[in-house]
Amino acid sequence: MQDNFKVGDFIEWKKTFTLVDVQKFAEISGDVNPVHLDADFAASTQFGQPIVHGMLVASLFSAIIANELPGPGTIYLHQSLDFKAPVYHNSEVMARVEIIHIRADKPIFELSTICRNADGKILIEGKAIVIKK
Amino acid sequence: MQDNFKVGDFIEWKKTFTLVDVQKFAEISGDVNPVHLDADFAASTQFGQPIVHGMLVASLFSAIIANELPGPGTIYLHQSLDFKAPVYHNSEVMARVEIIHIRADKPIFELSTICRNADGKILIEGKAIVIKK
Repeated sequence: MQDNFKVGDFIEWKKTFTLVDVQKFAEISGDVNPVHLDADFAASTQFGQPIVHGMLVASLFSAIIANELPGPGTIYLHQSLDFKAPVYHNSEVMARVEIIHIRADKPIFELSTICRNADGKILIEGKAIVIKK
Repeated sequence: MQDNFKVGDFIEWKKTFTLVDVQKFAEISGDVNPVHLDADFAASTQFGQPIVHGMLVASLFSAIIANELPGPGTIYLHQSLDFKAPVYHNSEVMARVEIIHIRADKPIFELSTICRNADGKILIEGKAIVIKK
């Protein structure tokens, strides 16, 4: 399987999370932090307006990995996430997953996982390790 | 703020993820990996039956952190996740968040984040770093 991929291969997806996305994530996760859901509360915080759950934004990495790189059949072994800057509702984010290492003996991939805003500022940065069965 | 908490404080939440939860997560994240959604496909994999997205299970940590430990006003700085074993649909999981360090100079908490099944087997293990404003 890993023969079809090489270090440096990458996939980028753009996505904009809406209030409805955030509400659905709050419902299924139980994370009802008002900074995500309540505009009046969020206005009183350092962010000034509602922000998207970090774990919802990070799920874009999972989506790219499962769909494209390395694609169907992939299972997560590890994900690290550094949350660098807030993601506001209705603001476009660009998630990028890039292969940084492939094991020679097993179909195990190490991936760089980075999310940026439209200005190129890093929002979330981390690494994933996955196996493709 | 951090004076109300001490190392060793922990919160545990039980949760059971259903097919509907998984479908909603697939919709908002874009992660439509058939191992999560398609029973026939899942039957052909090592898991034998559909599993819950790892990032959805891990969102329980975000929920506990935002709601209880250290609670409202908390912002994620970091989360690491090692996915150790699959989480099946309709199987109860127990997520535990425990304080392992509190900085003296800033309201920054280091947390152990572990998810186990009903038999006590570790499903996801990691650490979080958060700040409570």
